[in-house]
Amino acid sequence: MISRRRPIYEDHARAIFHGPEGRTLVQHFKDGARAGGGRVVDVEGKGALSNRISERLMRGLATAAVPTHFIRRLNMREQLVGDCDNFPFSVRVYNAACDDFHSRFGMERNQPLSRAVLEYVMLEPYGERVSEEHITAFDWAASHEVEEIFHLALRVNDVLLGMCAAVGMRMLRAELSFARSTEEEMSRVVLADALTPDGCLFCDLRGGDLLGLPGGDGEEPDEDALGGMYREVARRFGVLEETEGEVLEEDVRTPVAGARIYSFTRRARKKLTSVPPPPPPSPSPTPPPKTN
Amino acid sequence: MISRRRPIYEDHARAIFHGPEGRTLVQHFKDGARAGGGRVVDVEGKGALSNRISERLMRGLATAAVPTHFIRRLNMREQLVGDCDNFPFSVRVYNAACDDFHSRFGMERNQPLSRAVLEYVMLEPYGERVSEEHITAFDWAASHEVEEIFHLALRVNDVLLGMCAAVGMRMLRAELSFARSTEEEMSRVVLADALTPDGCLFCDLRGGDLLGLPGGDGEEPDEDALGGMYREVARRFGVLEETEGEVLEEDVRTPVAGARIYSFTRRARKKLTSVPPPPPPSPSPTPPPKTN
Repeated sequence: MISRRRPIYEDHARAIFHGPEGRTLVQHFKDGARAGGGRVVDVEGKGALSNRISERLMRGLATAAVPTHFIRRLNMREQLVGDCDNFPFSVRVYNAACDDFHSRFGMERNQPLSRAVLEYVMLEPYGERVSEEHITAFDWAASHEVEEIFHLALRVNDVLLGMCAAVGMRMLRAELSFARSTEEEMSRVVLADALTPDGCLFCDLRGGDLLGLPGGDGEEPDEDALGGMYREVARRFGVLEETEGEVLEEDVRTPVAGARIYSFTRRARKKLTSVPPPPPPSPSPTPPPKTN
Repeated sequence: MISRRRPIYEDHARAIFHGPEGRTLVQHFKDGARAGGGRVVDVEGKGALSNRISERLMRGLATAAVPTHFIRRLNMREQLVGDCDNFPFSVRVYNAACDDFHSRFGMERNQPLSRAVLEYVMLEPYGERVSEEHITAFDWAASHEVEEIFHLALRVNDVLLGMCAAVGMRMLRAELSFARSTEEEMSRVVLADALTPDGCLFCDLRGGDLLGLPGGDGEEPDEDALGGMYREVARRFGVLEETEGEVLEEDVRTPVAGARIYSFTRRARKKLTSVPPPPPPSPSPTPPPKTN
């Protein structure tokens, strides 16, 4: 299928095609993975596992009304997603001092952090750390969108940490991409791309063994190590067997009204006049509650 | 054990005793449960299952650095918790229009909400809905504590929704209690009491069957139905068998610095001068990062 169409984006791990429906894309997962030293290797079956793992996590987020671009899985290697405008930066959420975080701040490797720490990273060229200053000055996102991304990233992190804890894992770091989705004449921020061990670093809850890709720690995983890691993460999330994990098959379409919710504290919401008010709830409350 | 000591608090589901260590309490789980019509019945084994379910969920929250009063499980029916000042109200977090929510707002029963809706409820006498106005006017909590409770409740909800999604469940509603904990001369809000089907209403992710206690829906569960529900929730969370679920045995002590984190947006944090700044991070960042 991939050979007959021309991708509109492609890297070692994914290829993106125009979707069969309006404002949709097809996300195709490839077997390419980054091994030690940034070398790209083929890990057999990695694309299919990534597809299932990402579906599982995106569906989990949907139960918490977190808006994502995910609609449904199409086949072994492909899923249908919404066509959104990706922001040109990603968000790294650190729950532990992994990657080069520990060396930058003089901490022990993989030391748990007392709270999640967010970093923004440029996508093109990849890897440069940037702040809200750069993002808003260069018009990569509006100030209220950065605010929304910030809070959505923390919510995604919380839900994923819960999913991991339930299956005996801890997520040390997540790398998240967001996009601007315009539906019903309302623009909102949604989680984009995919949630796989490519961007998320998992370890065992008990022993602290790394299950994910080491990043900048000097470790050099090979094809076998990477394949084993993908299978183990898939097994934990219950999607290793093709027959497992078929919990839901409906499309995932988070209600638009659920978009901005957690983006602002009630206090901040009152003060931010530049942000349009959320649409009226549906159905409208009749009659009003007695108290509150 | 329960007969030899005098509880400092007791209801049909729990008894609280002074703990063996300073500033600790022992939380003992009893078999009493509310059946249809508010009738209290004995459900054999419910106390032991509640103890394990609550431990499992509290440990899950700890992996997300959510501060709770839970320290460790002591035995089949008891756990050691921190001795904190409980706020005299609880927080109901609705993810779906269950209980009487649907009738109050003219919605379908158990209809998913586009975002979590919080309600505050008085504990003594139990059940009256109150607002932040009542809570702050009657000095039940300071304004910044209500803010912290609000955001912590949403975080607890997100992590629990993730844990549920990973084991094929959806949480329709959680009833959460919070307390003021004073450690190292710093006061912070922590999740208190217990997380069990007494306060949390679970359904199956696939079929939507209620696994929890029906509340105000006219259903009348008996002892057998309640016992089956507790066992099913325990089975899903992997704690039905005594030998299972022993993922961690260390004490849970969330770092104090992790307390206030998500309580305020960065924007709001800058403006709230009444809230003391968080303590300096440990270890202090040396050297500072190049960007950001």
